[in-house]
Amino acid sequence: MTSSDAYAELVRRSREVALIQSCSAVLGWDQQTYMPRAGAALRGDQLALLAGWAHQKATDPVLGELLAAVEGSASDPDSIEAANVRELRHAFDRSVKIPARLVEELARITTLAQDAWQQARAKNHFATFRPLLERVLALKREEAAAVGYVDHPYDALLDEYEPGATTAGIRALFAGLEKELVPLIRAAAEKKKPRTDILHRDFPIDRQKWFAESAAAAIGFDFQSGRIDTTAHPFCSAFGPGDCRLTTRYNPKFFNEAFFGVLHEAGHGMYEQGLLPEHHGTPAGTYCSLGIHESQSRFWENQIGRSKPFWDHFFPRLKQAFPGALDEARTEDFLSAINAVEPSFIRVEADEATYNLHILLRFELELALLSGDLAVADLPGAWNEKFEKLFGLVPKTDSEGCLQDIHWSFGGFGYFPTYTLGNLYAAQFGEALKRDYGESEIARSVRVGDFRPVLGWLRDRVHRHGRRYRAERLCERATGAALSPEPFLRYLKEKLSQSEPVC
Amino acid sequence: MTSSDAYAELVRRSREVALIQSCSAVLGWDQQTYMPRAGAALRGDQLALLAGWAHQKATDPVLGELLAAVEGSASDPDSIEAANVRELRHAFDRSVKIPARLVEELARITTLAQDAWQQARAKNHFATFRPLLERVLALKREEAAAVGYVDHPYDALLDEYEPGATTAGIRALFAGLEKELVPLIRAAAEKKKPRTDILHRDFPIDRQKWFAESAAAAIGFDFQSGRIDTTAHPFCSAFGPGDCRLTTRYNPKFFNEAFFGVLHEAGHGMYEQGLLPEHHGTPAGTYCSLGIHESQSRFWENQIGRSKPFWDHFFPRLKQAFPGALDEARTEDFLSAINAVEPSFIRVEADEATYNLHILLRFELELALLSGDLAVADLPGAWNEKFEKLFGLVPKTDSEGCLQDIHWSFGGFGYFPTYTLGNLYAAQFGEALKRDYGESEIARSVRVGDFRPVLGWLRDRVHRHGRRYRAERLCERATGAALSPEPFLRYLKEKLSQSEPVC
Repeated sequence: MTSSDAYAELVRRSREVALIQSCSAVLGWDQQTYMPRAGAALRGDQLALLAGWAHQKATDPVLGELLAAVEGSASDPDSIEAANVRELRHAFDRSVKIPARLVEELARITTLAQDAWQQARAKNHFATFRPLLERVLALKREEAAAVGYVDHPYDALLDEYEPGATTAGIRALFAGLEKELVPLIRAAAEKKKPRTDILHRDFPIDRQKWFAESAAAAIGFDFQSGRIDTTAHPFCSAFGPGDCRLTTRYNPKFFNEAFFGVLHEAGHGMYEQGLLPEHHGTPAGTYCSLGIHESQSRFWENQIGRSKPFWDHFFPRLKQAFPGALDEARTEDFLSAINAVEPSFIRVEADEATYNLHILLRFELELALLSGDLAVADLPGAWNEKFEKLFGLVPKTDSEGCLQDIHWSFGGFGYFPTYTLGNLYAAQFGEALKRDYGESEIARSVRVGDFRPVLGWLRDRVHRHGRRYRAERLCERATGAALSPEPFLRYLKEKLSQSEPVC
Repeated sequence: MTSSDAYAELVRRSREVALIQSCSAVLGWDQQTYMPRAGAALRGDQLALLAGWAHQKATDPVLGELLAAVEGSASDPDSIEAANVRELRHAFDRSVKIPARLVEELARITTLAQDAWQQARAKNHFATFRPLLERVLALKREEAAAVGYVDHPYDALLDEYEPGATTAGIRALFAGLEKELVPLIRAAAEKKKPRTDILHRDFPIDRQKWFAESAAAAIGFDFQSGRIDTTAHPFCSAFGPGDCRLTTRYNPKFFNEAFFGVLHEAGHGMYEQGLLPEHHGTPAGTYCSLGIHESQSRFWENQIGRSKPFWDHFFPRLKQAFPGALDEARTEDFLSAINAVEPSFIRVEADEATYNLHILLRFELELALLSGDLAVADLPGAWNEKFEKLFGLVPKTDSEGCLQDIHWSFGGFGYFPTYTLGNLYAAQFGEALKRDYGESEIARSVRVGDFRPVLGWLRDRVHRHGRRYRAERLCERATGAALSPEPFLRYLKEKLSQSEPVC
């Protein structure tokens, strides 16, 4: 077999595994959206079967032989081929360390755990979730041990979401961020609060749906290749070319929840829609890392979606969409309200500044759960204690405390830090975009509802590359510099200095 | 390996294949309900992959060895074990004759064909569907040739839906039925028509949805284990224990379409919900045949859902659900309207008598397409010609002609006759039920909205047996007699003699 035959066979096999995983993604989406309650056990069996099959294919010793046959043959280390080989090797080496039994067990238990989490959250009853979370955690510790690590079991899990990142690196980055953020938030708290009642008026769900979908379409989410449904926890699930599903949740008395959720998920969705279909099923056609994925959602939600030019365009339309609700309001009032910095309980509804404190909290708790320093039974107490320290508030219920997020129920330990990485990447991309096009040119284009320059830049600098470059490298190529918290802090300081209360 | 070990291994493998097929069922349901247009190609690849995997597992030579090791070992030929072995042998012998390539090709092409059919039907444009139908037909002829047959390729396909039935047997049964039906329908046409305008008033969709779902729950469909969505073509798809999906379509100006559709699909759904979960994934936990499946839907739709006791209970509730629409109407007017016999174009909206002519038409066209006597290009013309002969009407468009049904797009040649078999079985079950309980006792119970005696009888005589007995045998055990068209003709004659126009 020639090296080029071996590469072609590698690609074929990579696509097959991706296709199995895309079947699981459909089943996972359905589980969150439409599956009836009693279907959970069967769904667990289905997902376990598919996970086992994918794992069997992903660990086939033939892959090791094919990789050995092609490694080192690409002359350009930046070529698509070299990148695919690099990433397939990385995934293969990881997969073969995890026993099939563990993969299937994780698929089954996390399906049941998600169901238990939904119930626990709805009933505000942590005990419903606890035994399943304990089982998930035990399995994830087993996974970390199987994969191996030098410093902390967390490293083994983090690598799945943010290839190349380390616990120590994140710790250092977050410590620096915390040091700057806390005084910023304190200063904002001491200023007079902008009025936010404008966001809590009557926003009928059908109109919210129409308005959010119109905005998602306007910024570039392709509804021929996607859709939006309603779920307890918003997410984006991309099955592959031509099929990307977003979800959101509507609150008829609070505008932000669905609208910024949709902008956020549409950002994820446009990234997936911007991957090159000819590379589907290979690393070159796969998102770079979850940090980069999150940068895309945060970019549209915050950098664009909370900016003045965006609302110069959309605010008159918003008034029309909700007649009576906003008649007397000015764009400036609305902008102040959606940019208000104020500690609150729910991560996905947090402002851009305090959001990162929510992540710090989860990161520390995850580390403690994984190392065994914190027992699952003590999680609600530990959550509330840390929350009070960081935010000066105590959640009244576990549903607005440690039960609010789906992640742990699906085994997503190591996932949360990628959210803050996303915020940092987004701000750095935003600075680079403005530098490349000129800030006023971008503002002018957004103000008239033309999002093509923005989306075009992201497509060119981020989307089309898939996983060709690792995140750090992609960032350097796109912005000319390594990832730094500075652009995010500059962005935040500028915003906070502007957002004087206007009433 | 002992015979009992071999049996346990057979069951394990049977369950595994069923689980793969249940994943395909979820993907198929999603394709009909929520998949965005551009997702069709990926969906085809996913379904082809799963079909190939299931086929590989279903044709594993080890299965042949296991079957040989257990065959003849069960002392009671009616035991669950003997029945499972009999049906697994039947399925294995069929599967090994069909090449994997053909299975995957069929999965891929029928996915594309369903998409093309939806478009063709929406645009009333047969040419959009034609090339894909030609490919599906060619593949199904290839399948029939691979499976083998004595008399007609149709036998090889029919056997998948109605195990044990033959083309010759269906032909004879249908010829006898046609002879009696045609004069019955003619006599009905000569009587004064009942007014049906009562069914064509304003029925807002949200209220229809609520009313139909209430009725489905009242007769016994379990919404903890199922749901109802909206599709172009109504269907029931059961994934396995705890998860059964129904669909319907709403017409705000015609009551029958959604309501009787929901009763019909709920009948299918309650059959699936009545299979014993401990036998899931084996023949004993699988529906007996499509004819028996259809008997359950038709039973609830017609035997119960168009009866006087049913509407004695529901008509006052119907009036409340649609205030203003039916204020002056009497139960008798409504009963006459929903039981009116009148030739029409759309099968799923046809009355109980003419419905079977729709099936005769499709059966004859299928035979001709499969034998090669009819080219796909000539289908619209042949349809309209035969339609005029049977119904005295000519469809104005192909959408209300040969494009109305989804079946051929998914390769369901041999499927349609099971609908008429279902009508005959349903009537025979209805006679037996009334004989067992007393007609007045059943009427009394339905009149007060208590459907437990009816559902209990079906659970006991039909549902819980799965495929333990073949359809003919199940019918004999349940009713004391072999299948005959006489109960259906008696039922129809009695109904037609009663349904004098009341206004």
